[in-house]
Amino acid sequence: AWLNAPDGFAALLAPRALDSHKGNSGDLRIIGGSAGMTGAAVLAARAGLLAGAGRVFAHTLADAPAYDPIHPEIMWRPVPAEGGSPGLKAGGEAAGPASVIAPPASGALVIGPGLGQSAEARDLLAALLPVADRLVLDADALNLVAATPALQAALAARAGTGLRPAVLTPHPLEAARLLAATRASDGAARAAPPPDAGLVNADRPAVAAELARHYASVVALKGAGTVVAAPDGRLRINPTGNPALATGGTGDVLAGLAGALLARDDDAFEVACAAVWLHGRAADELVAAGIGPVGLAAGELAPAIRTLLNRLTRPA
Amino acid sequence: AWLNAPDGFAALLAPRALDSHKGNSGDLRIIGGSAGMTGAAVLAARAGLLAGAGRVFAHTLADAPAYDPIHPEIMWRPVPAEGGSPGLKAGGEAAGPASVIAPPASGALVIGPGLGQSAEARDLLAALLPVADRLVLDADALNLVAATPALQAALAARAGTGLRPAVLTPHPLEAARLLAATRASDGAARAAPPPDAGLVNADRPAVAAELARHYASVVALKGAGTVVAAPDGRLRINPTGNPALATGGTGDVLAGLAGALLARDDDAFEVACAAVWLHGRAADELVAAGIGPVGLAAGELAPAIRTLLNRLTRPA
Amino acid sequence: AWLNAPDGFAALLAPRALDSHKGNSGDLRIIGGSAGMTGAAVLAARAGLLAGAGRVFAHTLADAPAYDPIHPEIMWRPVPAEGGSPGLKAGGEAAGPASVIAPPASGALVIGPGLGQSAEARDLLAALLPVADRLVLDADALNLVAATPALQAALAARAGTGLRPAVLTPHPLEAARLLAATRASDGAARAAPPPDAGLVNADRPAVAAELARHYASVVALKGAGTVVAAPDGRLRINPTGNPALATGGTGDVLAGLAGALLARDDDAFEVACAAVWLHGRAADELVAAGIGPVGLAAGELAPAIRTLLNRLTRPA
Amino acid sequence: AWLNAPDGFAALLAPRALDSHKGNSGDLRIIGGSAGMTGAAVLAARAGLLAGAGRVFAHTLADAPAYDPIHPEIMWRPVPAEGGSPGLKAGGEAAGPASVIAPPASGALVIGPGLGQSAEARDLLAALLPVADRLVLDADALNLVAATPALQAALAARAGTGLRPAVLTPHPLEAARLLAATRASDGAARAAPPPDAGLVNADRPAVAAELARHYASVVALKGAGTVVAAPDGRLRINPTGNPALATGGTGDVLAGLAGALLARDDDAFEVACAAVWLHGRAADELVAAGIGPVGLAAGELAPAIRTLLNRLTRPA
Repeated sequence: AWLNAPDGFAALLAPRALDSHKGNSGDLRIIGGSAGMTGAAVLAARAGLLAGAGRVFAHTLADAPAYDPIHPEIMWRPVPAEGGSPGLKAGGEAAGPASVIAPPASGALVIGPGLGQSAEARDLLAALLPVADRLVLDADALNLVAATPALQAALAARAGTGLRPAVLTPHPLEAARLLAATRASDGAARAAPPPDAGLVNADRPAVAAELARHYASVVALKGAGTVVAAPDGRLRINPTGNPALATGGTGDVLAGLAGALLARDDDAFEVACAAVWLHGRAADELVAAGIGPVGLAAGELAPAIRTLLNRLTRPA
Repeated sequence: AWLNAPDGFAALLAPRALDSHKGNSGDLRIIGGSAGMTGAAVLAARAGLLAGAGRVFAHTLADAPAYDPIHPEIMWRPVPAEGGSPGLKAGGEAAGPASVIAPPASGALVIGPGLGQSAEARDLLAALLPVADRLVLDADALNLVAATPALQAALAARAGTGLRPAVLTPHPLEAARLLAATRASDGAARAAPPPDAGLVNADRPAVAAELARHYASVVALKGAGTVVAAPDGRLRINPTGNPALATGGTGDVLAGLAGALLARDDDAFEVACAAVWLHGRAADELVAAGIGPVGLAAGELAPAIRTLLNRLTRPA
Repeated sequence: AWLNAPDGFAALLAPRALDSHKGNSGDLRIIGGSAGMTGAAVLAARAGLLAGAGRVFAHTLADAPAYDPIHPEIMWRPVPAEGGSPGLKAGGEAAGPASVIAPPASGALVIGPGLGQSAEARDLLAALLPVADRLVLDADALNLVAATPALQAALAARAGTGLRPAVLTPHPLEAARLLAATRASDGAARAAPPPDAGLVNADRPAVAAELARHYASVVALKGAGTVVAAPDGRLRINPTGNPALATGGTGDVLAGLAGALLARDDDAFEVACAAVWLHGRAADELVAAGIGPVGLAAGELAPAIRTLLNRLTRPA
Repeated sequence: AWLNAPDGFAALLAPRALDSHKGNSGDLRIIGGSAGMTGAAVLAARAGLLAGAGRVFAHTLADAPAYDPIHPEIMWRPVPAEGGSPGLKAGGEAAGPASVIAPPASGALVIGPGLGQSAEARDLLAALLPVADRLVLDADALNLVAATPALQAALAARAGTGLRPAVLTPHPLEAARLLAATRASDGAARAAPPPDAGLVNADRPAVAAELARHYASVVALKGAGTVVAAPDGRLRINPTGNPALATGGTGDVLAGLAGALLARDDDAFEVACAAVWLHGRAADELVAAGIGPVGLAAGELAPAIRTLLNRLTRPA
């Protein structure tokens, strides 16, 4: 079936084992939060927490807050400029940031919310792409990929090294930028005009599939009728969601949600399908309750997503 | 009809298009928050968010907080002292602040909440008046206009440059100051005693109309029986609201609400009518629920306004 | 009747005039919040806001927060070390702090929550006692009075200058300290052992009356069966309240509540009676709802007090 | 009975005396909160507040926040580096930290949430073990004990000095570290492989009993089927709790809860039994309400624990 529905991500709705502990719910790391954009990292971290990550770390490029008063469970860490870090384990032999940011095997990593496009952000992304197994790219991480051929190559090269496909969550404009980069590198369409969001929306499934294939990643192309495409050709159209989602921060929530699910599931495509379905359905239920479509605040999605997840999870 | 009612702002109650995205809900920028007055900018920004602005930026004169824990969706930016800024686009050729604060065409700008009356605030206002199309002036922005002939001239001159009328939201004392400035510049009443709030309240419709005409702006004169006047002579008396609104910060909420509505509607008069009606009605509903009139906190209006907006919006 | 009940403070339960504005609900100023004790000032300020003060200023000795995320309506001001202040008007000719901290005629001032007993705090109190008309003293302000003969004299001397009696809200240990100071200055009991909380509780009405007379102040002696005594001999025993109030911060809430009521009523004795009755009854209603007696948090009293105030206020 | 149930901690469910005041509900001090881990101290402090501590102090190794916006009742104090402190009374003649951190006789002290394992943390723990009567050790305090023979000796030596048994709340991995230290010091099992979490879980009652005996402490060994063991051989298996607790911060909440109960009860074993029963039952009730097992946030336990405590407390 092309229609995205819960039976396509049943593994994510299985009950927790009775002897669960915070270690096997999976760690989630959010990388982002440059100056003036801490809120985006907060939204992603809170969403990850309420979506079931066992521990949530938020690594910010700007000064980290001492704690989040709404969710003190989130642990804040500065992104290491150089050398060691208490929160990010060494992942290789290389010196500099690359040596300190590989996540632990059992956790997932989301890079992008409030990341910005600084050289520091680009270096972080470059260091993570070859080593982070469970990985979600959103927002400025996608813009950095679109703007940087070396990052495009590193992303595409993950498939050959046994790493899982990354999950990419572009909105149409970000997808257009990625597509332009794709076609430029393919050479085929170099003479064509640069793609824009309109072009992307004209054939969303084809664009998602092309990006998935080119970057060897799972692509969740957001917008009215989100499309999820895997590099192996699987494709789903998502039926949930509504215009209430047309507000700032909903992408950060989706990224955090996808990260939390990825921390406990092997299949990046199923994770992306689950994330967009739950995200949209939570918005539908909030609107039905009179919270939106006007003025739904992105952060309000997270508790609604949790309610859904617990309702859908089969009893043990 | 002179009585302000929802059929006078029906366009604002139309459902969102199914393919909405955060870009076409409109950006809202709040300019204010000098030292000790950050809270006023927070109130305006939160109100704008819950009233449906697609993205909300708060530009503060004092140090900006890293994020607002209640609404991390709000993006905080320092007001640029000189030179470029990530949040405010260049709007012209002039050097200094004037060159960096023109808002993007699709967004609205509210200046005033917690602004203070520093030279920096006055320069910001001077730079914005000739270039910001969708514009709300409140609180100290109004006091600065009343105290500065050049700002009065710049405000009145907007009509000749194709900019929309600004929305002014004075309380009676602020209106009295504006009126005094008006009459001084008109010359006619120079010998008369300076107007005070009592004089304003003695004939509220006439005062609102005079201010609207003189400043070529839509004027929402607050108080018991808020009056909205347009420079073209349209005038409405608002029937909603109650003494619960007699508490600090309700003006900031009204300004943020008006800004969010202005970000997605062309008609400044309709926007002002909608804003005062919704603001007052939200207070009425809160009081009916036992939240006030004693001790209603201004920030509590915003969720009630959102509830109203969603209830009144016609289904798609 | 000696029993404290709402018919004894009916004026405070009258409906607001329809043309109320934030100016005539009264300004409330909280002075306190030394390092590590900001929370006490927050509790008092929030309580004052929800009890109906038109505007609430919190003047802290430690660095003030940019804003309170729960109630951005509160305006934060540093206490002026010397010279002028935006929040506190000049009250006389004297130099130094004394010249800048007299409150405006229409507002009330609470000094004590988190004040500490520094020399700065003592100087502030010394400056305020001779000039602040509507005044509540709590916590360390009471301890400073008990420790400083000059402050005792300044407090007692208010009656001769036409200022209203201050409202003092000691708990038994604070009352014992004040009583010791009283008797030392009276000379009569100098040879007796120093009063302690046990002695105070042994005859609470007599102690409250003695303190009220000696300091020419209204005294609300807290504890099981709070006693309110006026310098003119009026005395009430309060029947509301329960052990849930035995937790840190409830005194700060009471002080803020008393300040908000004092900002709109002339009679300090009625205000104190209303404050202790409402404070205790709110705790009773919370406990009836299962919130306490174990673990009631002081800040939770404020919304419950607001609910009570609105329920008891006669319709207009 | 080996099964942990409320009749085993009935003294903690007795109603408060009518003349309670914040002094006799007991002070609670949380020691922890190193850089990046302030949230852990917040979770413990909030839990202690809602579990009925009369006053809650949070002593952090990192910069303390000015106040907690959710619970301004909590008082923040820096941990004294050397010399005196406003929040921690002098406890002896020794110089340095040891002389300033003994808690008052009537209060309880929790050390561990977010403590870290710095030399400063170790020195604090070393100074507290010989003098703090009502004491809970959690998280890094346990790891420091496991890593430091002198601390092991100091902990075991408390029994000989008339101090109450400390309450230790290890999870299986922390218990394994303690066990390894135990056996190493016993000499008996030096040749055996180091214990790990699997070994601990293989016979949880025996491990808890061994740790309790060796460290002369009450041990609450967390996990599926928490075991509480006293040094005198008492042992309980706890039937409450579920996989929702497998998330970061639930241990901090348990530690704060245990501290609040210890502040008003003499028997450390009963306190530990009550704490683990309430903690688990609160999680059970939250899950029944749809809040979890997926995404329950640790901080949500505290209000649910309060609800339970008030429901179970016998009416006066």
